[in-house]
Amino acid sequence: MTTFNRTALEEVLKKRFFYTPSFHIYGGVAGLYDYGPPGCALQANIIDLWRRHFVLEEEMLEMDGSIMTPADVLITSGHVEKFTDWMVRDLETGEIFRADHLIKAVLETRLNGDEQARKAEIVAKSDGNAKSEKGKKKNNKVQAVKLEDSVVADYETTLAQIDNHGGDGLEEIINKYNIKSPETGNDLSKPVEFNLMFESSIGPTGHIKGYLRPETAQGQFLNFKRFLEFNNDKMPFASASIGRSFRNEISPRSGLLRVREFTMAEVEHYVDPKNKNHSRFNEVKDLKLRLLSRGVQEGGKMEPIEITIGEAVEKKIVDNETLGYFLARIYLFLIKLGIKPDRLRFRQHMPNEMAHYACDCWDADIKSSYGWIECVGCADRSAYDLTVHSNRTNEKLVVRESLAEPNVYEKTVLEINKKVFGPKLRQNSKTVEDYLTSLNEEQLEALKKALEDGNGVTKVPGTDGNQYEITNEYLTIKRQTFTEHVREYIPNVIEPSFGIGRILYSLIEHVYWTREGDEQRSVLSFPPRVAPFKCLLVPLSNNPAFTDLVGDLAKRLRKLSIAIKVDDSSNSIGRRYARNDELGTPFAITIDFQSVNDGTVTLRERDTTKQIRENVDTILQVLMNLVEENVTWEKVMETYPTFTQQELD
Amino acid sequence: MTTFNRTALEEVLKKRFFYTPSFHIYGGVAGLYDYGPPGCALQANIIDLWRRHFVLEEEMLEMDGSIMTPADVLITSGHVEKFTDWMVRDLETGEIFRADHLIKAVLETRLNGDEQARKAEIVAKSDGNAKSEKGKKKNNKVQAVKLEDSVVADYETTLAQIDNHGGDGLEEIINKYNIKSPETGNDLSKPVEFNLMFESSIGPTGHIKGYLRPETAQGQFLNFKRFLEFNNDKMPFASASIGRSFRNEISPRSGLLRVREFTMAEVEHYVDPKNKNHSRFNEVKDLKLRLLSRGVQEGGKMEPIEITIGEAVEKKIVDNETLGYFLARIYLFLIKLGIKPDRLRFRQHMPNEMAHYACDCWDADIKSSYGWIECVGCADRSAYDLTVHSNRTNEKLVVRESLAEPNVYEKTVLEINKKVFGPKLRQNSKTVEDYLTSLNEEQLEALKKALEDGNGVTKVPGTDGNQYEITNEYLTIKRQTFTEHVREYIPNVIEPSFGIGRILYSLIEHVYWTREGDEQRSVLSFPPRVAPFKCLLVPLSNNPAFTDLVGDLAKRLRKLSIAIKVDDSSNSIGRRYARNDELGTPFAITIDFQSVNDGTVTLRERDTTKQIRENVDTILQVLMNLVEENVTWEKVMETYPTFTQQELD
Repeated sequence: MTTFNRTALEEVLKKRFFYTPSFHIYGGVAGLYDYGPPGCALQANIIDLWRRHFVLEEEMLEMDGSIMTPADVLITSGHVEKFTDWMVRDLETGEIFRADHLIKAVLETRLNGDEQARKAEIVAKSDGNAKSEKGKKKNNKVQAVKLEDSVVADYETTLAQIDNHGGDGLEEIINKYNIKSPETGNDLSKPVEFNLMFESSIGPTGHIKGYLRPETAQGQFLNFKRFLEFNNDKMPFASASIGRSFRNEISPRSGLLRVREFTMAEVEHYVDPKNKNHSRFNEVKDLKLRLLSRGVQEGGKMEPIEITIGEAVEKKIVDNETLGYFLARIYLFLIKLGIKPDRLRFRQHMPNEMAHYACDCWDADIKSSYGWIECVGCADRSAYDLTVHSNRTNEKLVVRESLAEPNVYEKTVLEINKKVFGPKLRQNSKTVEDYLTSLNEEQLEALKKALEDGNGVTKVPGTDGNQYEITNEYLTIKRQTFTEHVREYIPNVIEPSFGIGRILYSLIEHVYWTREGDEQRSVLSFPPRVAPFKCLLVPLSNNPAFTDLVGDLAKRLRKLSIAIKVDDSSNSIGRRYARNDELGTPFAITIDFQSVNDGTVTLRERDTTKQIRENVDTILQVLMNLVEENVTWEKVMETYPTFTQQELD
Repeated sequence: MTTFNRTALEEVLKKRFFYTPSFHIYGGVAGLYDYGPPGCALQANIIDLWRRHFVLEEEMLEMDGSIMTPADVLITSGHVEKFTDWMVRDLETGEIFRADHLIKAVLETRLNGDEQARKAEIVAKSDGNAKSEKGKKKNNKVQAVKLEDSVVADYETTLAQIDNHGGDGLEEIINKYNIKSPETGNDLSKPVEFNLMFESSIGPTGHIKGYLRPETAQGQFLNFKRFLEFNNDKMPFASASIGRSFRNEISPRSGLLRVREFTMAEVEHYVDPKNKNHSRFNEVKDLKLRLLSRGVQEGGKMEPIEITIGEAVEKKIVDNETLGYFLARIYLFLIKLGIKPDRLRFRQHMPNEMAHYACDCWDADIKSSYGWIECVGCADRSAYDLTVHSNRTNEKLVVRESLAEPNVYEKTVLEINKKVFGPKLRQNSKTVEDYLTSLNEEQLEALKKALEDGNGVTKVPGTDGNQYEITNEYLTIKRQTFTEHVREYIPNVIEPSFGIGRILYSLIEHVYWTREGDEQRSVLSFPPRVAPFKCLLVPLSNNPAFTDLVGDLAKRLRKLSIAIKVDDSSNSIGRRYARNDELGTPFAITIDFQSVNDGTVTLRERDTTKQIRENVDTILQVLMNLVEENVTWEKVMETYPTFTQQELD
């Protein structure tokens, strides 16, 4: 990672049109990107793999819902009130920053400066404080300024807990560490909440307020009842959705990692709150994950432990089997894509950091040149969402489970003797009845005792606050036996939620390298399954003798549904291979003069640049197996002789 | 079509969760729908087929772009000014209608009433006018009122040209035919323009106005230069995009056919304006299409002609080969999906109906119970979009073509003699120079003649409007030879644009039927390729003896990437088959007691309900071939003996 050159990679991605700022000829808009052909294909392949790994593998119920969402839904879910970030403003220029990101950037810059100073063994003695002040003023540039050991420790603790603060906490940090506007050194405003949802209005009257959804989850919850029906009322099960969501980020930076519009893939797994075990947990329990628990972070450290998910659940580091099962499945998915295991960790959310609905939450963080970035969240949202939507709409979002053994239980109940109650209390009967019916079992027992103690007479408040006398004749309080044949419950929801763009960018960094001795020759070593194009089809030159063969082969490859790129441009064959190494195309079929004569073609592999030469049918069979990852290139090289050199004329 | 029962179909679609109004537990929002599992899978399969048929087949450059679009882009494209519909308001209740739809509904209702009256041979004589007035007042209900023959003819002509009117034309029709608010009979307002784009603002300041894109096309045009580079500067080529777009419809009705948020798939094919031939036109030229040309519609008729696309292009009914090629490709795509050829036609746009950018446009209309609905548009957008964006941004969106033979030509040019011009005209030199450099060749020749006629002296205006004397000494006007090695041009764009939701709904109507003698047993006969689920996996009963076999088979089917639905509920086998007929699942594998003993299973086909029984390996092989449409069920029935009856215990 130390030699990683982001500028060089970005140059390749731009040149090969993986992605580009949207509307770039208009100057672009921060946080909006277009994927060009290779980026678009890469994204489609990641989504395809996701669908196979999650939806098909577990027969999840996929839906595709509306982005435009009426305000009412998002008021109920809590997003209108709480889906916010804290922003601060440069008091002179008016420039706006996201408060936590600004603090993080400033403190990290100071720590870097400290590190440099220590390395250079600069001992700043008499003028240390003055220099330090200067370093704080223009705090966007790294300056070699040594800090006190205690200050370093303070900064590190603050950084480890940065996600755990609200507006007041952020303000305190800004004041305590004298944080200013980075470019100008001006004072900053107090942190102010900013809602991250894009607002619009629906229909010609302008009366219906709408927001662009910030997640696909709500659309899934609102359909819970229909999903359950579709699933023949069987529990547990999951719904899933892949689609665009929107967050009006305060000041998006970091390329694809923080954007205003993004494709996400979300699973909502509905589970009985009394039993969060998972029937397939056994299949994953021995998988080792790197976990960074809440406790470790609270200690100000960021060192994960490596532990099997089975042990983590047993030790209650991870709350339950279903949550653990999905952490493991997320891990397997990311590794299959090509994410490097040593740059992947699972971090538990801090209590104040969790979304307002969550009762436990782990992020899959992937390390790139931007640091550790949350790419997948896996939250236990409890019964929060289904409960609030159900309360708001009076639509029951529950599971009704037939009990094998009926549930028999006793309960203290109140019976009002209408014949006496009404006539005696007259106009006050409603306020007293409302009070009485609001009592729980314990309170009813207390009332019963009060009546006994008062020889059948006592006083109770009405809902109006006045006291009223009641007697034994007005009501009966007794134990009664109930028999339930059906158990009704609101399921809990475990939600793995994937930011496809973040995963895509992190993956690109993980598979990027340059050929030894030639930094100009970049390679993106995507696994065949996710590579944008599977095979380059390339005639040795633009000699017309090759045209028909190229056309025929292209047709056969298309019929096999293998995504190809034909490059019959006049560039040298080496140049054309190099271009496709940058696109991450794992294989190339080359047609040369020998092909015209004997029907053989060569197959080149991207990482090794080695080739084999066989007849077309054999090559296509080998290629199919390679693309579907049924065979490795190593195995192919053992089976077929290596072909060394194309004849160039 | 006469016996088509839409209510029954809608019941099936609701019950099987193909789609549902979004946010239905909140009362829903008109024009917003969620696709449930079968609708979502059906949509994904249509998109997959689209991608193979268009993108892969022709190596189109697919991109995935931003939905949120800054206002500047859509001001330039003309959408802010012109992307509008006309609405009218009930002057008393304030209810809003889309003007053209309202007129259409009212006139069609009157024509239906006329038809009923004629059928019933009611001859309304003396009180005909009064009745007729009444029928017009409450004009949303069909009333059997006979119309004059000339009125019927008038209505029909008006309906055939309804898309050809602006606000004034619509107002005239409303007045002429005495059209009122349908429910109340109240007067209507004048038609007012309403912009169909959803508006929002980007970023924390609220200063950047944005719209949700109404089409994916603009995002493609803005990347034209990068596409051309990616394509090694080769022309012609196409970009493509599949994604969500938004239109804030005035009063959406007609279910999935008119919605506010929809998935569209668009191709932008860039072509040399001097050569709109297509290299693969030969492959399609003998295909017969049903064309409804502009001329036919202007004659007030809606009868298409059947003609080969080759002949249509030759006769200039369709403007050029590329447009014709895409009409044919659209036809082939829709037929492959399962759209019935006799309910598909291509209708040419009327001059005033065409989008502001188009120079010719054909719709693929599909007939359903809602009438003929545009499901695909195929427009020649000329060089409009690239030109306006290029002018606005000063970014050249052109093709530079090296000429085999340099282009040599003469041109009249102006040369200003700076040494004399400036010193003589002093502070007026700029206004005169600006005028002179704005002259075209013809004007330069005229000026030259004026100088000759005036013996080397004449007067010219400055850009300030004043007259200035100039002489031969100030300038030279002469013929000069130029040699061009590169031709630079702005390509034209042919755009096939698909509304996926409209195609999806129309397809459902086309494949829907009920079993003879049992209207309760509905079937959706999707072709295997597009069916949401390919195979039902069903144990004969919920006897535990079947559990392992079902699990093993499910695993094998998933490995083959065959989308399955396991139904091990306690419903009867007949009930479970019927449920999956309604989902359009073409095949079912049944596991029974014989399966446990000898490893054979049965394979059932949806439309015929016929079965075969073979060992698992054979059945899987047959199923694979059926799903990939390599073999038909008829062929399978010829090869394997029919299996007649499951033993039920």
